[in-house]
Amino acid sequence: MMRLHGYWRSTASYRVRIALNLKGVADEHVSHDLRLAAQRDPDYLALQPQGLVPMLESSEGTMIQSPAILEWVEETFPDPPLLPEGRGDRAMVRAMAAIIGCDVHPLNNLRVLNSLRHDCGMDQAAVNAWIARWIVAGFGALEPLIQQHGGAFAFGDSPTMADVYIVPQVYSAERFGVGLSPFPRLIAAAAAARALPAFAAADPAAQPDADPS
Amino acid sequence: MMRLHGYWRSTASYRVRIALNLKGVADEHVSHDLRLAAQRDPDYLALQPQGLVPMLESSEGTMIQSPAILEWVEETFPDPPLLPEGRGDRAMVRAMAAIIGCDVHPLNNLRVLNSLRHDCGMDQAAVNAWIARWIVAGFGALEPLIQQHGGAFAFGDSPTMADVYIVPQVYSAERFGVGLSPFPRLIAAAAAARALPAFAAADPAAQPDADPS
Repeated sequence: MMRLHGYWRSTASYRVRIALNLKGVADEHVSHDLRLAAQRDPDYLALQPQGLVPMLESSEGTMIQSPAILEWVEETFPDPPLLPEGRGDRAMVRAMAAIIGCDVHPLNNLRVLNSLRHDCGMDQAAVNAWIARWIVAGFGALEPLIQQHGGAFAFGDSPTMADVYIVPQVYSAERFGVGLSPFPRLIAAAAAARALPAFAAADPAAQPDADPS
Repeated sequence: MMRLHGYWRSTASYRVRIALNLKGVADEHVSHDLRLAAQRDPDYLALQPQGLVPMLESSEGTMIQSPAILEWVEETFPDPPLLPEGRGDRAMVRAMAAIIGCDVHPLNNLRVLNSLRHDCGMDQAAVNAWIARWIVAGFGALEPLIQQHGGAFAFGDSPTMADVYIVPQVYSAERFGVGLSPFPRLIAAAAAARALPAFAAADPAAQPDADPS
């Protein structure tokens, strides 16, 4: 049994969907509508007191925090590997992932944006500028790394954890209208990844809980 | 050769100092004064184009992003282990680390606080409230996990990656005067860790570049 609690537009949930698809692991999806704060329902809080998605329920227990879930997925289903063999290469792929996972995404998730709106009085234009600022900084850091280490994908010629993190962030950048022309290598790598069925099936628009309105 | 580029008060550098000390790995420290934007000097940018600390130079290359560096340290110097054996337990320790590394620290680092001051016009009181908000949320998520999984330390009876992340965040919470009484288990675990020589030697105040003023 593998049950992924997520939300179609949560980019951290999107990462886990991609990884499970790449590993060929079947999982049941449970949607929690973040716009309605469904992740704060008592039933869900009993399972995940932090009230965040994603959470993965498996026979080995309940797992939270997408970086931890993704390392667990890699250790539990080693084939195909999403981290390269050499330790230095693994560190580079994990660094690429962390640029998204630590330097970009945490600044742009819904609870932070809500705090900027409500506590700092930011209007939507200011919020969008905030979002763009951190995406541009992160993608600007990734672009030379992809130039140096990338092949068909962000690192080498097969998809890695780097792509698992980058593709959802590109989706988010598109959603918020961030200009991506300064990052041609990143965009090419993301396009190559999105063309794979595992990534396409994980796309927010392809989820049963997607709401295009 | 192992050379750690950091800054005494950078909590991400502090994490790496702790881990190297726990592994008994000797390293040379190079300080970049973040208050003077020394991490944006051309000489450093040539090594680390993102202009962030920490960076670890080793014979296997140059590594960036503390979560990636820490996984590299764990893979390269497996003894003593900073992750437990079981996959589910490893996922829990990594989740505890990610609560700090993704949900707290990225919102409170210097470049984000500068952005809140300059772009959003926050005064120091508002900045302090922002800092406290995310620390309290993250520690509030950790407290029941430590209650469930902790022993002498945050997870079990030996120090793990969880302590490597939590102790620097507690240092930061103290620095910004965040009230920690709602988190007795977390505080006890952090105190136990700080009593170890490896943690004490990594403390910001013990660094040669420390500036108590």
